[in-house]
Amino acid sequence: MDSGVILNIIKIGGNVIDNPDALNEFLEHFSSIKGKKILVHGGGKKASALAQRLGVEVEMVEGRRVTNQEMLEIAVMVYAGWINKSIVAKLQKFGCDAIGLSGADANLIEGMKRPKKEVDFGYVGDLLHDSVNHNMLKKFMELGLTPVFSAITHNKKGQLLNTNADTIASSLSASLSSNYQVNLIYCFEKDGVLKDVEDESSVIEHIDLASYKVLEKSGEIFDGMLPKLNNAFDALQKGVSAVYIGNASKLHQFNQGCFGTRITL
Amino acid sequence: MDSGVILNIIKIGGNVIDNPDALNEFLEHFSSIKGKKILVHGGGKKASALAQRLGVEVEMVEGRRVTNQEMLEIAVMVYAGWINKSIVAKLQKFGCDAIGLSGADANLIEGMKRPKKEVDFGYVGDLLHDSVNHNMLKKFMELGLTPVFSAITHNKKGQLLNTNADTIASSLSASLSSNYQVNLIYCFEKDGVLKDVEDESSVIEHIDLASYKVLEKSGEIFDGMLPKLNNAFDALQKGVSAVYIGNASKLHQFNQGCFGTRITL
Repeated sequence: MDSGVILNIIKIGGNVIDNPDALNEFLEHFSSIKGKKILVHGGGKKASALAQRLGVEVEMVEGRRVTNQEMLEIAVMVYAGWINKSIVAKLQKFGCDAIGLSGADANLIEGMKRPKKEVDFGYVGDLLHDSVNHNMLKKFMELGLTPVFSAITHNKKGQLLNTNADTIASSLSASLSSNYQVNLIYCFEKDGVLKDVEDESSVIEHIDLASYKVLEKSGEIFDGMLPKLNNAFDALQKGVSAVYIGNASKLHQFNQGCFGTRITL
Repeated sequence: MDSGVILNIIKIGGNVIDNPDALNEFLEHFSSIKGKKILVHGGGKKASALAQRLGVEVEMVEGRRVTNQEMLEIAVMVYAGWINKSIVAKLQKFGCDAIGLSGADANLIEGMKRPKKEVDFGYVGDLLHDSVNHNMLKKFMELGLTPVFSAITHNKKGQLLNTNADTIASSLSASLSSNYQVNLIYCFEKDGVLKDVEDESSVIEHIDLASYKVLEKSGEIFDGMLPKLNNAFDALQKGVSAVYIGNASKLHQFNQGCFGTRITL
């Protein structure tokens, strides 16, 4: 059961990270969000760009990065190193007492190396229902700290694992729902779930399970949104209070209660 | 005043970090050290090697790296990214609940950008007497965590700074002496301070201020050791209980009380 204390878990992806001005503006807005919060960031194009400069081949299968030893080093350097620490330093400037973390730190997120099937994804981590050390995370937040997660986990046997940032955000949210009333907020480049993908003003303000089934059947929702919405309902079924999908550049509207599409059961 | 609780602060340099087997063995020994402890690591040759692969010129002045924007990114990626997270994952394997940190995280170490004089060192940080947030560090250790510091700090204005690892170790030690009985342990490739630099068996077991002055006058100590010893006495004068200088590969002997050269006031 949650304690009634609100925790906002916010995920940003490459579209914000790759644009220094957008990132700076986002971090200022993020700092202004009241109460307990966690930031989860993806990697953006920097890892692929570094791989290219180093002559390391980037292999993608089904939209996922195949991670050999060289690619793992690059991912850890870029995600847990430069991006994570740059974000933390900027948040500190804005008065937000951030702490940059990977899943290995304080054993916060244990991943399991994805089993080799048709594709060997290499050092890629999947998460289980008990992967998150929510007790330690709660203690950090009780110290007034704002955790900032890069998408790197470990297997408790000394191996770092490249892990999907959306998965980390939803696993953190589900796990921390035992301690908090969790809002999971996915930031991306659109204003929310759109009725008409060409029309930014067609944001659907609220979706629940009943209206989602209607929208899904009618084919009114852009196909690319379906995985996001399925993930959202999965998180809600695991105890998350509400999921929001909206524009990273408009996060300041979250305090006013009018951010993107709100999704509930 | 210290509380009588012992805290061991251990610094390793490139000679350990650059050798995977030596690093692994060291981390196993480090894990076995009882009680509260902190690890501070330097960078080794990996940052220069990466710079070379990327065609970034490495400029050293008086043994210190000049850190422009490109070199800062490399230092943060390598030190706070790959090396720090690899060490943390390995310590977790050995049952040590490590947390990898830079000075930006939880605002733990505030650096000041070195003023431009004859040389502009770029994004290099110097530390002041009140740079360390020892209250937060104490809280981390009270949670059972072992802090692992990379040599990156920040200026609280959003700027990351490349900082000397020896300086971080001694500043942490001096600052935490208000809370703990601190031993500062410098690990390097020799067994201790040697009377005869060619003879590994000539380790001086104990040096105090009186015997140091005699040794210094007699010219019996290898010149390269003088800065280390001056730093040691500086730390002791700032409240550190004892400084040890010894071989990284023999850290397991520390629990038995026979590690390297012990330096006290």
